[in-house]
Amino acid sequence: MTDQAMPGIDPERIEADYLLETPVDVGDALEAMAGEQSSGTFVPLPAETPELKFRVAARVERFEIVEETGIPSLPGAMRPNNGYRIAKATLSWPLENIGPSLPNLVATVAGGLFELKQLSGLRILDLRIPLEFASAYAGPGFAVEGTRRLAGVQNRPLIGTIIKPNVGLTPSETAELAESMFDAGIDFIKDDELQSDGPACPFDERARLVLDKLKQHSERFGRKPMYAINITGDLDQMRRRHDLVEKLGGTCVMVSLNSVGLVGLIEFRKHCRLPIHAHRNGWGYLSRHPLLGWSFAAWQKLWRIVGVDHLHVNGLGNKFSESDQSVIESAKGCLRPIFATKPCTVMPVFSSGQTAKQVPATYEALGSVDLIFTAGGGIHGHPDGPAAGVQLIRRAWEKAVSG
Amino acid sequence: MTDQAMPGIDPERIEADYLLETPVDVGDALEAMAGEQSSGTFVPLPAETPELKFRVAARVERFEIVEETGIPSLPGAMRPNNGYRIAKATLSWPLENIGPSLPNLVATVAGGLFELKQLSGLRILDLRIPLEFASAYAGPGFAVEGTRRLAGVQNRPLIGTIIKPNVGLTPSETAELAESMFDAGIDFIKDDELQSDGPACPFDERARLVLDKLKQHSERFGRKPMYAINITGDLDQMRRRHDLVEKLGGTCVMVSLNSVGLVGLIEFRKHCRLPIHAHRNGWGYLSRHPLLGWSFAAWQKLWRIVGVDHLHVNGLGNKFSESDQSVIESAKGCLRPIFATKPCTVMPVFSSGQTAKQVPATYEALGSVDLIFTAGGGIHGHPDGPAAGVQLIRRAWEKAVSG
Repeated sequence: MTDQAMPGIDPERIEADYLLETPVDVGDALEAMAGEQSSGTFVPLPAETPELKFRVAARVERFEIVEETGIPSLPGAMRPNNGYRIAKATLSWPLENIGPSLPNLVATVAGGLFELKQLSGLRILDLRIPLEFASAYAGPGFAVEGTRRLAGVQNRPLIGTIIKPNVGLTPSETAELAESMFDAGIDFIKDDELQSDGPACPFDERARLVLDKLKQHSERFGRKPMYAINITGDLDQMRRRHDLVEKLGGTCVMVSLNSVGLVGLIEFRKHCRLPIHAHRNGWGYLSRHPLLGWSFAAWQKLWRIVGVDHLHVNGLGNKFSESDQSVIESAKGCLRPIFATKPCTVMPVFSSGQTAKQVPATYEALGSVDLIFTAGGGIHGHPDGPAAGVQLIRRAWEKAVSG
Repeated sequence: MTDQAMPGIDPERIEADYLLETPVDVGDALEAMAGEQSSGTFVPLPAETPELKFRVAARVERFEIVEETGIPSLPGAMRPNNGYRIAKATLSWPLENIGPSLPNLVATVAGGLFELKQLSGLRILDLRIPLEFASAYAGPGFAVEGTRRLAGVQNRPLIGTIIKPNVGLTPSETAELAESMFDAGIDFIKDDELQSDGPACPFDERARLVLDKLKQHSERFGRKPMYAINITGDLDQMRRRHDLVEKLGGTCVMVSLNSVGLVGLIEFRKHCRLPIHAHRNGWGYLSRHPLLGWSFAAWQKLWRIVGVDHLHVNGLGNKFSESDQSVIESAKGCLRPIFATKPCTVMPVFSSGQTAKQVPATYEALGSVDLIFTAGGGIHGHPDGPAAGVQLIRRAWEKAVSG
């Protein structure tokens, strides 16, 4: 199976780009990584011919030293003879080693190698994944087009908001708040990631009351905003909650990716018949050190291949530690195809301190209206009421797009 | 439900200990964390009474400044007025906010807070989890006693080894290697975490051939070493592979925790009737920076409550970046009860460059023989053959225990 229209993707090999820092020779460090993650052994074995090695070994495709430093980024590395080198590098593995299995891809490209003594820093920057993975996994069921169709919003972003406080509202208080947002003309509402099925706000009751308000609203006004209700839980809980949401006419479910994990989401995706709004809470522990962990470019591909439809990317001028440049790169990445024949593009979700003020710069940098733009305080706290807050953001987008 | 025999565990609250670094006042940083992870809102709401706040808010239980520094550990924090303070702190949440749900526990104690601008470092050090979680999840099905019973090994560690090279052996080569290890008197063999169901070494054929050798060995010698075969994959694959292993008389399955994730493992555990050998590959990206991510003490509790039976802890003098002190703390943690009425203790697995040389220090520091001690080169590469390698390690343990 080839993916010839997608330049740079080898149909037979998995490629991973890394940023590494090492006290040893960069070539030696990369050989250690390749050995650890493929044909490493204790002693040469009789069966281990050069042909076998060549067939299964991870390969160092290329590297480039980008910086030298005297201070290691992470503890535990070997003592350097001559400082530390920071390099960008690409390793590749034969698809044959694991087959098109995402959990085993993760063990291969992001397994034991972060702990190697030859490294004082390691971050996975990007992945190029053979097309066979596209056949093995569902991919987004709705993506941009399906989300627009269900929400009834074309040619502009979905304007969204968030249920706050994070916890503490009863189901009926949540439903009242949601109704006031529907009435304000919102396109999209998400639950907080902390509220799934707490005893003080049980899932079933919240779903019934909010989706009843949604039904009333759609019968009256002929529009149905999307409510991304947080179904995060064990697998049977998520499936049951999904079915209830579908039955009650809901059009979206929200899942915390790092709480659920890869295999849980793969299995849930098989069952799911609604768009999956993917929350990335916990992303900080995977990414906040620049020489450790995951870049968003690599990490998001896993979830898109599994089949989420919306993916959080933070927002410009956010309340968190992420730079605007990083936010825009993440959002652009969500809209860039993974496979030529199956793009798996998803809607980036902008959030955290977003108001009308960030709209012009967001549009200018992203160059697309295929996004969900969620605002909290700017809508809930607008002095003329939430409808005015929603209108302000919609007009800001119209103005930005018309130049 | 109370757990009175377990001092320090509040039956109604979840507690998390953190190491944090902040450019602002430590108390303010902790309030920001507590607000972000519980009752945070945009604007005061009419419904938000002090009683409500008190009921649902995360609480700062205590903190202690342990160090001051001029250089931030992580980028993206606010500019400091007066350097950075490193503190140990405890937050707590009402169990009522989430109920006994592990995925929602993770979103609560380890969600968005790692990205806060008020922090230039955050690591979760430990968790104290109410007993209700013990009823909601299965816990270890075999643990130490069940593993000993199946392996037929009492009063000493299980001596184990690893199939190497990581990848490249065919199923029949794997079976031959495994047979030579059975004949050498090994108690335990694990697959490499890179080998699950690659096209060059298909799972089913490997299981059939290795477990056939195991059956022959046990019929001849009346002992059945444990083979932790790597079943990592999608949920249906893991369940099917488990059933095949069970049918063929196997007594253990191995899973890569970070590849599978929490919900996948919870669901697999419901199905599983064999000990789960839990591999922690990828642990480095969660833990290698001392002021980011997870400590093993916190992380391992999640998986023990779900129900793994063996958990990798690295080894003394290992080839990786981890210190001996950290290894021993991790191993001791595995043997310390989580709940008084349901200890969920699991067998720590020592690996990475282990030989007879590390045995005395390992026993002295751990004070227990309830562990799996896996050696690679020291067994496969022993000059007098693998049986001599196994004997050497067994004698080293006898000597260590008898003093």
